[in-house]
Amino acid sequence: MGQIITFGEVLMRISPRGNKKFVQSNIVEFYFGGTELNVGISISNFGIKVKHISAVSDDFIGDTAMTYIRKFGVDTSCIVKSKRPLGVYFLEVGAVIRPSMISYNRSHSAFSEIEPTKVNWENALEDGEWMHWTGITPALSQGAFNVLKDGLKLARQKGMAVSADPTYRSGLWKYGQNPKEALVELLHYSTIFIGGVNEINEVLGTEFGYSNDDFIAASKQLIEEFPTIEKVFDKIRTSVNSSWHKIRARMWNSIEFRETEDIDITHVVDRIGTGDAFAAGLIYGLQKYDDYKAMEFASAACALKHTYEGDVNFATVDEVNNIIAGNITGRLMR
Amino acid sequence: MGQIITFGEVLMRISPRGNKKFVQSNIVEFYFGGTELNVGISISNFGIKVKHISAVSDDFIGDTAMTYIRKFGVDTSCIVKSKRPLGVYFLEVGAVIRPSMISYNRSHSAFSEIEPTKVNWENALEDGEWMHWTGITPALSQGAFNVLKDGLKLARQKGMAVSADPTYRSGLWKYGQNPKEALVELLHYSTIFIGGVNEINEVLGTEFGYSNDDFIAASKQLIEEFPTIEKVFDKIRTSVNSSWHKIRARMWNSIEFRETEDIDITHVVDRIGTGDAFAAGLIYGLQKYDDYKAMEFASAACALKHTYEGDVNFATVDEVNNIIAGNITGRLMR
Amino acid sequence: MGQIITFGEVLMRISPRGNKKFVQSNIVEFYFGGTELNVGISISNFGIKVKHISAVSDDFIGDTAMTYIRKFGVDTSCIVKSKRPLGVYFLEVGAVIRPSMISYNRSHSAFSEIEPTKVNWENALEDGEWMHWTGITPALSQGAFNVLKDGLKLARQKGMAVSADPTYRSGLWKYGQNPKEALVELLHYSTIFIGGVNEINEVLGTEFGYSNDDFIAASKQLIEEFPTIEKVFDKIRTSVNSSWHKIRARMWNSIEFRETEDIDITHVVDRIGTGDAFAAGLIYGLQKYDDYKAMEFASAACALKHTYEGDVNFATVDEVNNIIAGNITGRLMR
Amino acid sequence: MGQIITFGEVLMRISPRGNKKFVQSNIVEFYFGGTELNVGISISNFGIKVKHISAVSDDFIGDTAMTYIRKFGVDTSCIVKSKRPLGVYFLEVGAVIRPSMISYNRSHSAFSEIEPTKVNWENALEDGEWMHWTGITPALSQGAFNVLKDGLKLARQKGMAVSADPTYRSGLWKYGQNPKEALVELLHYSTIFIGGVNEINEVLGTEFGYSNDDFIAASKQLIEEFPTIEKVFDKIRTSVNSSWHKIRARMWNSIEFRETEDIDITHVVDRIGTGDAFAAGLIYGLQKYDDYKAMEFASAACALKHTYEGDVNFATVDEVNNIIAGNITGRLMR
Amino acid sequence: MGQIITFGEVLMRISPRGNKKFVQSNIVEFYFGGTELNVGISISNFGIKVKHISAVSDDFIGDTAMTYIRKFGVDTSCIVKSKRPLGVYFLEVGAVIRPSMISYNRSHSAFSEIEPTKVNWENALEDGEWMHWTGITPALSQGAFNVLKDGLKLARQKGMAVSADPTYRSGLWKYGQNPKEALVELLHYSTIFIGGVNEINEVLGTEFGYSNDDFIAASKQLIEEFPTIEKVFDKIRTSVNSSWHKIRARMWNSIEFRETEDIDITHVVDRIGTGDAFAAGLIYGLQKYDDYKAMEFASAACALKHTYEGDVNFATVDEVNNIIAGNITGRLMR
Amino acid sequence: MGQIITFGEVLMRISPRGNKKFVQSNIVEFYFGGTELNVGISISNFGIKVKHISAVSDDFIGDTAMTYIRKFGVDTSCIVKSKRPLGVYFLEVGAVIRPSMISYNRSHSAFSEIEPTKVNWENALEDGEWMHWTGITPALSQGAFNVLKDGLKLARQKGMAVSADPTYRSGLWKYGQNPKEALVELLHYSTIFIGGVNEINEVLGTEFGYSNDDFIAASKQLIEEFPTIEKVFDKIRTSVNSSWHKIRARMWNSIEFRETEDIDITHVVDRIGTGDAFAAGLIYGLQKYDDYKAMEFASAACALKHTYEGDVNFATVDEVNNIIAGNITGRLMR
Repeated sequence: MGQIITFGEVLMRISPRGNKKFVQSNIVEFYFGGTELNVGISISNFGIKVKHISAVSDDFIGDTAMTYIRKFGVDTSCIVKSKRPLGVYFLEVGAVIRPSMISYNRSHSAFSEIEPTKVNWENALEDGEWMHWTGITPALSQGAFNVLKDGLKLARQKGMAVSADPTYRSGLWKYGQNPKEALVELLHYSTIFIGGVNEINEVLGTEFGYSNDDFIAASKQLIEEFPTIEKVFDKIRTSVNSSWHKIRARMWNSIEFRETEDIDITHVVDRIGTGDAFAAGLIYGLQKYDDYKAMEFASAACALKHTYEGDVNFATVDEVNNIIAGNITGRLMR
Repeated sequence: MGQIITFGEVLMRISPRGNKKFVQSNIVEFYFGGTELNVGISISNFGIKVKHISAVSDDFIGDTAMTYIRKFGVDTSCIVKSKRPLGVYFLEVGAVIRPSMISYNRSHSAFSEIEPTKVNWENALEDGEWMHWTGITPALSQGAFNVLKDGLKLARQKGMAVSADPTYRSGLWKYGQNPKEALVELLHYSTIFIGGVNEINEVLGTEFGYSNDDFIAASKQLIEEFPTIEKVFDKIRTSVNSSWHKIRARMWNSIEFRETEDIDITHVVDRIGTGDAFAAGLIYGLQKYDDYKAMEFASAACALKHTYEGDVNFATVDEVNNIIAGNITGRLMR
Repeated sequence: MGQIITFGEVLMRISPRGNKKFVQSNIVEFYFGGTELNVGISISNFGIKVKHISAVSDDFIGDTAMTYIRKFGVDTSCIVKSKRPLGVYFLEVGAVIRPSMISYNRSHSAFSEIEPTKVNWENALEDGEWMHWTGITPALSQGAFNVLKDGLKLARQKGMAVSADPTYRSGLWKYGQNPKEALVELLHYSTIFIGGVNEINEVLGTEFGYSNDDFIAASKQLIEEFPTIEKVFDKIRTSVNSSWHKIRARMWNSIEFRETEDIDITHVVDRIGTGDAFAAGLIYGLQKYDDYKAMEFASAACALKHTYEGDVNFATVDEVNNIIAGNITGRLMR
Repeated sequence: MGQIITFGEVLMRISPRGNKKFVQSNIVEFYFGGTELNVGISISNFGIKVKHISAVSDDFIGDTAMTYIRKFGVDTSCIVKSKRPLGVYFLEVGAVIRPSMISYNRSHSAFSEIEPTKVNWENALEDGEWMHWTGITPALSQGAFNVLKDGLKLARQKGMAVSADPTYRSGLWKYGQNPKEALVELLHYSTIFIGGVNEINEVLGTEFGYSNDDFIAASKQLIEEFPTIEKVFDKIRTSVNSSWHKIRARMWNSIEFRETEDIDITHVVDRIGTGDAFAAGLIYGLQKYDDYKAMEFASAACALKHTYEGDVNFATVDEVNNIIAGNITGRLMR
Repeated sequence: MGQIITFGEVLMRISPRGNKKFVQSNIVEFYFGGTELNVGISISNFGIKVKHISAVSDDFIGDTAMTYIRKFGVDTSCIVKSKRPLGVYFLEVGAVIRPSMISYNRSHSAFSEIEPTKVNWENALEDGEWMHWTGITPALSQGAFNVLKDGLKLARQKGMAVSADPTYRSGLWKYGQNPKEALVELLHYSTIFIGGVNEINEVLGTEFGYSNDDFIAASKQLIEEFPTIEKVFDKIRTSVNSSWHKIRARMWNSIEFRETEDIDITHVVDRIGTGDAFAAGLIYGLQKYDDYKAMEFASAACALKHTYEGDVNFATVDEVNNIIAGNITGRLMR
Repeated sequence: MGQIITFGEVLMRISPRGNKKFVQSNIVEFYFGGTELNVGISISNFGIKVKHISAVSDDFIGDTAMTYIRKFGVDTSCIVKSKRPLGVYFLEVGAVIRPSMISYNRSHSAFSEIEPTKVNWENALEDGEWMHWTGITPALSQGAFNVLKDGLKLARQKGMAVSADPTYRSGLWKYGQNPKEALVELLHYSTIFIGGVNEINEVLGTEFGYSNDDFIAASKQLIEEFPTIEKVFDKIRTSVNSSWHKIRARMWNSIEFRETEDIDITHVVDRIGTGDAFAAGLIYGLQKYDDYKAMEFASAACALKHTYEGDVNFATVDEVNNIIAGNITGRLMR
């Protein structure tokens, strides 16, 4: 089987331990993340070859990011070095009724200043079988949008599957591009849609509600307007509070509607990257299982991610399938 | 607007990380606290000027305490230096059915040996608009009691509001003063009573129960005997166990009885200082809002404090009002 | 009162902090543990004299283990030094639906290579009143099995009580001995059986179910086949998930069946050693209280252990009895 | 006495513990620094009023920076908030023959985008007696250069002393301004020159050597070309390696040449900010002592800074004078 | 061989890591110490039975101190519990030219309030062979002085050796007793004097200098005035700075004068407790070796202590003798 | 250029922070190491392709080791998984006159039980250009010896260079093989000898001294008896104490004798793996430079390694050459 290709910014994530604020302790921990990289690492942890394409700073921070990606077995050969610093995000992890807060330092980062001349897509996609993109990348800069578009175009020419997670984040999109137009253009290169009614409403300009019926109607209209898209998968999070979530999923695959049961996450360890874990689970599952099982796998992967600190989902295929098999009482494994 | 004045002991708080006991790890963390200081810092975090009056040791520990108070923007210009060491408290944080435990080393501390000659109240209250005191201070030493009484007397002469949190802690009061008599004397200088039927019974010698009717009756009798007091606010904690609490509040403001809904704190991070956060919220709220909104604000501030480690409530006014507005699902803020 | 004697392997336990995996952080914490040592330390924390018998490595790791045992007041005078390294276990603590995982490095450890000539049981049992063993020890090596058998034989000759926790762990038993035969032989030296229907089925070759009726029937048959055994105590764990357990217990003491109420542990800190805390509570309780109170004590001790990190139960007798008295709301103790 | 005014960027400094590299540990520590802020904090630690003027990010990182500055008693009332992130620098601390390495992320920071309209210098310099600037600020951006020039102009109009540390760092100056011209322009507003022959050669375009004679000749020529400058102070570092330095100083005050003895720093803890400690010592000393004693004070302050981790010099006036008095054997103080 | 008896205060030592100040980090480490306890633990690490007599707080801090002492195998059976808190000392570790600083919180500690009725000396000295005291204990309180005097009296009656380290610390002695008189009285119960000309001058009221001749003359006069004293041992520290010391020793044993070579400690890890390590080495050495070898052993033990963090000397007899044998190049031991 | 092949055990290294002993802190750090792996990682850090061949445990510890090796870009595709645990070594880092101590737990490790059937050398050496071995591997087990011999045989058949570091460690060699015979056999497959007179004497049975003349004579005799060997490189360490070393090197390359100057390492951070850094520097240097420059490069690489914590040399080619160019004053690099 070929490689999964992910393209997106690598960010350094810095946060105090536990639920502390920066003002409380000058000892902090860092990981690396970024929504597309998170997807890539999670898929690599499932045992599949992944190549991540990005730009990092040409200093010891960029070098450290490279070692981080490499340790998960992800191919870093197409990551370029830049004179600009690596993007950073600072995180304060909330608890119960207190929300987690993130502050970004990414707007002139190594990745934001990427340009089409920096990425040789022919080379990068050589063994590619599937490419994944999200709505974060085109929101960062004209260069990032252009590079992504070039990559998707070639991926479709090569007949690769393309999964889209067109999350719209209003705090980005500062460089002048119209978000809806950009996402619409990129969705025309996509075959799998990962998102719910919010994302569909965003790109269609519709106002569907959250019911299953609305989800089905929205999905149908989406598929009608974007004929390359065949399937829509929606992860649904129910939050008691910052520390207690439930996760389920639903799908419309042009044939049938299905949904999974809630998985109850009574003590959330870290919710960052859980959506990425869902996408990774789906990309893996759709290559190994039928659509419903793929969604179950994605849903369980997403739930498991809530138990790991950091952006990365460490779960293996066996560990995810163990959850699907109902082994959720956390019995000690010796 | 004028300054809020708080007067009380500054303690160094030392505790192992997480739920560890001292016997388990020789690495510990310290903060500074003390019930009245906690109130002062929390109000300063709400953006209002606060001056804290106290005595600290004249060594690098006292200096560190000063920098700690200063970093929250609290005025330290009236804190005096003493040859005695700073008081310390050691804390082991419990979990679930295991209670947290505190051991104090404060009985001959810098603050306990304070004397009326050390504090220039005229100077200290120059810009004062509100003074807050608790039942801890008069319980520590004759000197602390005397200094507090002097301050309250002048505060009332200047027409300042005075809030009282007359918590009775039986482990203190070692220096000979009769607790009830002392609290009664000090309450005659107070205008807001922060406490429930336990505290009212203590000062009135009554035996009211915990029902709302009893609370109203108790409040009325309190106000009758202490005519300067206009309003009574009571925070009610329901504990599932050490790790799971619920907070609500009720009030009698001489006009009407009101109570708030429980806020469910399913994963308590740190309960120390939550009562102080309630008092701080009330002092802020009563200056900005009507009585009921003030109580709601206090209740939400108290609930939020359970999510911060240490004695200090870091919540801002916006964050507290966000809880009142019902945003309690802890959605990530970017 | 005489000493309680425990015999078994001392393991170094190494784990990352919180819910991290080894791949996430190169900073880890260690404790020492081992099922029989855990029982011994817990009983010592109850204020009763305990001697632990074992073999540790003759290096700074073995020395550190010795200081660890000694700090809890357990007599280490019969622990022998060996040229082999101390056994180690690595632990990754799970959360919610993710199970904790353990990896052992013990198969050629100092303890596994123990031989009857190394332990002078006459000397070791001189002041012994009660001896405790578990199914782990005979599973480790022929030497360990032989030494244990020698000890039990002498203990019974001296009229000591013998409690057995014949846990069967299939991952061990690599040296050729038939598990069932070994456990049966050792049970013939025992007077108290700590275990449930699984353990009874294992040694009797029966297939009893989990109902109370089945438990009573199983216990009766066990006592019939092992006439030295008088009482059977069974701890029952109900797991919502890795982070949320409930603990209760039931017993058949040849006279009556009794069971306790569930104690709800909504936020598990560490479940390792909770079974050992139950056994320790029982051994203490059976010497101080009637059978039912002993079981209540064991059950509360077990529940409390879930709130301490590491293998050791730090609870004192007062703290355990406080739980039995219903003080489970974790009120702060000053 | 009036305030000392410092103006410059506040940077977050992030570094692994000890001599580790980022690739070795994901646990790091942060402080805040920046050359002019370091000077300001050090002077505040000498007990003199200081106001720092800067721009920080309007998020929890900027808030944390504010609390950090405030805890040292430095006036933060003229620090403005910006939509841009705070500048960051990453540091790997070398040892022996391995140099320390710094990587900056500051080029589009809150401070770099400062504009003259943001700083009300009339207000900021109200109580100002002395203003300090360095060659870093004009190197950052046109805005920073302009704001600094406005401030210096007004400072001189008000008759304030102005100390200049015109360090030339070639890695900066990216925005188009000619470094020499900019420094020359700013030096015309300065009265004290802190720097050696390198800095003098840079602004004069000369090629003086390092001998004392050359230093004197260079100083004389500098003073001739910049008539507002009266005195030149030069700190001289002799490095055995990264971990072993010696510090001395020399001066030309238009009247005489003097130099101090080397202070031997056999075990460097942290050399960042030691030049700033020299400047701070000088600014303090020149107000309290004669020129030679001021240089001795600066030199001892600089030497002491090598023993503190972070950018900040914690030494008090007594501690610095203790060094000058020859108490350098580090005898324990109880 | 009998027990070595030590009597003195147990203090909790709290310090930031490395060379940090308390103002720099809220993460600190604690150990337990106290000059006489340090001596006791060091001797126990040499494999000799030691009993320490003291008073500790009756709370979880006192309990933790007990476990700390017990882990080194020191007999704690005569340590009494007190309602007063345990004494604490805060330490900031200096470097190079910066001195370490200590701040004490001990003046109303558990030990300071000890009384003769609390210690049963008959019982405590039952197996005693040697008792050690220092000038700290009589300086703390009348009670401590009295209890010590009782103990020494009985020790001499039983014919035990008594070593005295009559350090005079002027910051103590607050309770009214005349230091010289007290030390003189206690020295009359002593047989070994550990101290130099400073200590001798203090008790004799003389003014001897530091030369060897003066040391010999001072020792002779001391022995003349205190006929029970037979030998005087003096440890000499030469400090390059806080981080670089040299240690040697000299003695007058009524027969001959001897001195050792300097041991060069180029990178001091922790100098606290190094004098105690010398005393412990001497007490051990005088029982095992001739006087000169004993002094060599003490000197090497003292030097080794500089390489361990905390108050405790962890060196074994073999490790100390290894230094004496000249193996000081620190070759890796596998 | 082809791959460098290293073959040897991967060990988990566990040590307390700084100079602490295990008995002082239960917080420890781990890295992975092993002499041949250290060589491989260092060469990979020089930018050359490396493949390491080994056996690790089939559990989360083995997985973590794999990620550790992978993050340095070393090819792990020929590392096999084993049912046995990974070897562990515990390290206490000494200081000054206190030696560091190591305790191993490796005798039944995953690597020790390797067998010739587990390693497909044809596959492993496919792109191999150079193979490196040390005297540790044949000392571990018959299997390890056999696998190594197979590999060396094939390497020579393929015309690869083979460097030998035939360190003889007497604590190993427990499985029956005669060390000298084994080393002699393996040396017959080697082309570069890394070692001094000790190692030469060991394999020749000679008694050469340490002078340069003896070194030359020994090298000549070695080359005579092992005609495949062309060059001998000897690293010379001079230790002031544990914390202060000097490093130089000498060589006999069958043509000339050369030696380098001492590099003074006044503050050793970590000496583990410094010999491996020398070997790695040599292997790199001999491919890029002439023999003398290669030795200089090796010597400087070795010296730099003393400044990094852990087993790994992080130095890049530029950093090593910077040392050779005389830039050893550790000037800050921005």
